[in-house]
Amino acid sequence: MKRGSKKPKNLFSDLPQSFPEELMEVIAEDQHARIERIVSHGHVSPEGFWYDQQEHEWVVVLHGEAKLIFENDNDPLHLKPGDHVLIPAHRKHRVEWTAPDEPTIWLAVFYRADPK
Amino acid sequence: MKRGSKKPKNLFSDLPQSFPEELMEVIAEDQHARIERIVSHGHVSPEGFWYDQQEHEWVVVLHGEAKLIFENDNDPLHLKPGDHVLIPAHRKHRVEWTAPDEPTIWLAVFYRADPK
Repeated sequence: MKRGSKKPKNLFSDLPQSFPEELMEVIAEDQHARIERIVSHGHVSPEGFWYDQQEHEWVVVLHGEAKLIFENDNDPLHLKPGDHVLIPAHRKHRVEWTAPDEPTIWLAVFYRADPK
Repeated sequence: MKRGSKKPKNLFSDLPQSFPEELMEVIAEDQHARIERIVSHGHVSPEGFWYDQQEHEWVVVLHGEAKLIFENDNDPLHLKPGDHVLIPAHRKHRVEWTAPDEPTIWLAVFYRADPK
């Protein structure tokens, strides 16, 4: 803890100037949960692609803007800084849009969804 | 998801004007993890009190400022927006200071620490 306690890491720093693909970094994880920082810059999910995840995902946009689409729901969810949403496991979704002119910083928490 | 997908909740909104105690709200949880928003406004841990938690806690300050102290570590960890730290289970700590003139908004993710 000595190292971490003197100069904390920051979610808004260490952003690359340009990056061809979305940037995903694991901040913390164990077998129960995983915390990721995701940085988008105009990136979107490939056409026709849907995320279909085994874990629950709680996600918040901390900087920038994004639009999520859920399967069978035509109306996109427009997320601005502070906006958050819980995406239950296997709720299919895709990123339809992220701001093209600034980085969009997401914080995502994935946690286990036990079978019912 | 219909309701949530139209107007997302926001971490920076719905702040009370004044609150005598720290405000803690559970945003999402299951048996593996729990996500909380905590709002402080000059609140500190009681003198001599140490948090000694069974779960790991990853915490980030999103607005305001705070100082954390860890046991056997005299140097406080000064957290500003975006600064984050992982507090392993049973790592004793206390909140020494939060900004007196503005709300400090924390996001905390608690997740299970299995016995070794």
